[in-house]
Amino acid sequence: MEMKVTPTAIPEVLVFEPQVYGDDRGFFFESFNARRFHELTGQRVNFIQDNHTRSARNVLRGLHYQIDQPQGKLVRVIAGAVFDVVVDLRAQSPFFGRWVGVELSAENRRQVWVPPGFAHGFVVTSDSAECLYKTTDYWAPEHERSILWSDAALAIDWPISGAPIVSAKDSAGCLLADADVFR
Amino acid sequence: MEMKVTPTAIPEVLVFEPQVYGDDRGFFFESFNARRFHELTGQRVNFIQDNHTRSARNVLRGLHYQIDQPQGKLVRVIAGAVFDVVVDLRAQSPFFGRWVGVELSAENRRQVWVPPGFAHGFVVTSDSAECLYKTTDYWAPEHERSILWSDAALAIDWPISGAPIVSAKDSAGCLLADADVFR
Ligand SMILES: Cc1cn([C@H]2C[C@H](O)[C@@H](COP(=O)(O)OP(=O)(O)O[C@H]3O[C@@H](C)[C@H](O)[C@@H](O)[C@H]3O)O2)c(=O)[nH]c1=O
Ligand SMILES: Cc1cn([C@H]2C[C@H](O)[C@@H](COP(=O)(O)OP(=O)(O)O[C@H]3O[C@@H](C)[C@H](O)[C@@H](O)[C@H]3O)O2)c(=O)[nH]c1=O
Repeated sequence: MEMKVTPTAIPEVLVFEPQVYGDDRGFFFESFNARRFHELTGQRVNFIQDNHTRSARNVLRGLHYQIDQPQGKLVRVIAGAVFDVVVDLRAQSPFFGRWVGVELSAENRRQVWVPPGFAHGFVVTSDSAECLYKTTDYWAPEHERSILWSDAALAIDWPISGAPIVSAKDSAGCLLADADVFR
Repeated sequence: MEMKVTPTAIPEVLVFEPQVYGDDRGFFFESFNARRFHELTGQRVNFIQDNHTRSARNVLRGLHYQIDQPQGKLVRVIAGAVFDVVVDLRAQSPFFGRWVGVELSAENRRQVWVPPGFAHGFVVTSDSAECLYKTTDYWAPEHERSILWSDAALAIDWPISGAPIVSAKDSAGCLLADADVFR
C-alpha cells in the first residue's frame, strides 16, 4: 500500500519504491495504485496502455517521445537491470535538454515517472532485461520521434563500453538542435 | 496491437493472447490496451490498481473475492507457470458454482479476465511463479472473502499432488454453501 516517492534532479521526474510484503508463500506488492499516486504527486493519471519488452545486454531503446500526443510513462523492470534515462524537452523549462538517469532492476523494484514533455530511453546492463511501462496515452506512430542517444549536446553518460545495439529507427535519430520539442 | 480473445466455458470469463513483435533486440508487446479491450469485449474498463506476487511451487492463493466492492481482474504470469481458477459466484447465473481453469505462463503469455462477481485463485506449477494482475477497484480488506479451495461442492481439479501451501486466512476459507455470494 505505502508506495514511496523521491524527486530527481529534474523535480517532475519521480522515482517510486513500492512496499513489499513477504511471507511463507513469497511476496506481494502493489506496483501501482491510482489513489496513492494522487496522494503522493497531486496528479490524477489514467493509464490506458501497458507495454512489455525484453532486450539483450547492451540494447539501447530510445530516446523516444510523441510530439502531438505526448505520453506520461511509468517504467519498471521485472527481470535484469537497465539504466533508464529521461530528457526534458519542454522548451520553457529551466531543465530543457538536461537528463536524469536511474538504475532500475528487478531487485530494487524502482519505478520512474516520465511526465509528458520528456524523451525516454534505456540501456540494458544485465544479460537480458524485461521492462514494463504504463502510458497515459496511446501509441501514435505518426507522432513518434527519436533523438540520437549519442547526441553530444545531451552528453548522456550511458554505462556501457562500446557501441550499443539500437534499431534502425534509433540509429537515424535526430539531434536535439534539430528536434521537435514541446512549446 | 492485435490482442486476441477467446471465451471459456463460462462465456464472461475470457482468455487474451497478445501479439508479440520480435526483432534483433528482443521483443515488444502491448500487454494491455484499453481501446482494444473495448473493441474485443464491448466493455470499458478502468484499471486503478496493479499487483505483483511471487510464490513458490505448490503455493495456492485463493479463492478470493470482495463482496461489496467487487473487482474485475486481468491476470497474467511473467515468470514460471500457474493453474488459474475462476469461480462463478453470481447467484442468478446458469454457471453459479462452476469453475474454469487456465494454464498461465511466461511462455504462453495468456491473460485471464476475471469479471466482478467471480472468485479467483491459482496454484503454482513451476519452481516459482510471478503473477501480475490489474484490478478495476481497490483492495478493501473489510469486504474480502475466501472460499475454501478444497470445497467438495466446487470439485476443482487442482494439478498438484499433496497439500498446497496456503495462508492461514485461506485455510480457514468457508464453503460455497456458507459463502456470501453476488445477488
Ligand atoms: C511503442 C509501440 C510499438 N509497437 C510495435 C511496433 C513495432 O512492431 C514493435 C517495436 O516498436 P519500437 O518502436 O521499435 O519499440 P521500442 O521499444 O524501440 O519503443 C519504445 O521505446 C521506449 C524507450 C519508449 O519509452 C516507448 O514509448 C517506445 O517508444 O512494437 C506497438 O505495437 N505498440 C507500441 O506502443
Ligand atoms: C490483496 C492485497 C493485499 N495487500 C497486502 C496485505 C498483506 O500484507 C499482503 C498479502 O495479502 P493476501 O491477501 O494474503 O494476498 P493474496 O495473494 O493471498 O491475495 C490475492 O490473491 C489473489 C488470488 C486474488 O486475485 C487477489 O485479489 C488477492 O486476494 O499484501 C495489499 O497491500 N494490497 C492488496 O491489494
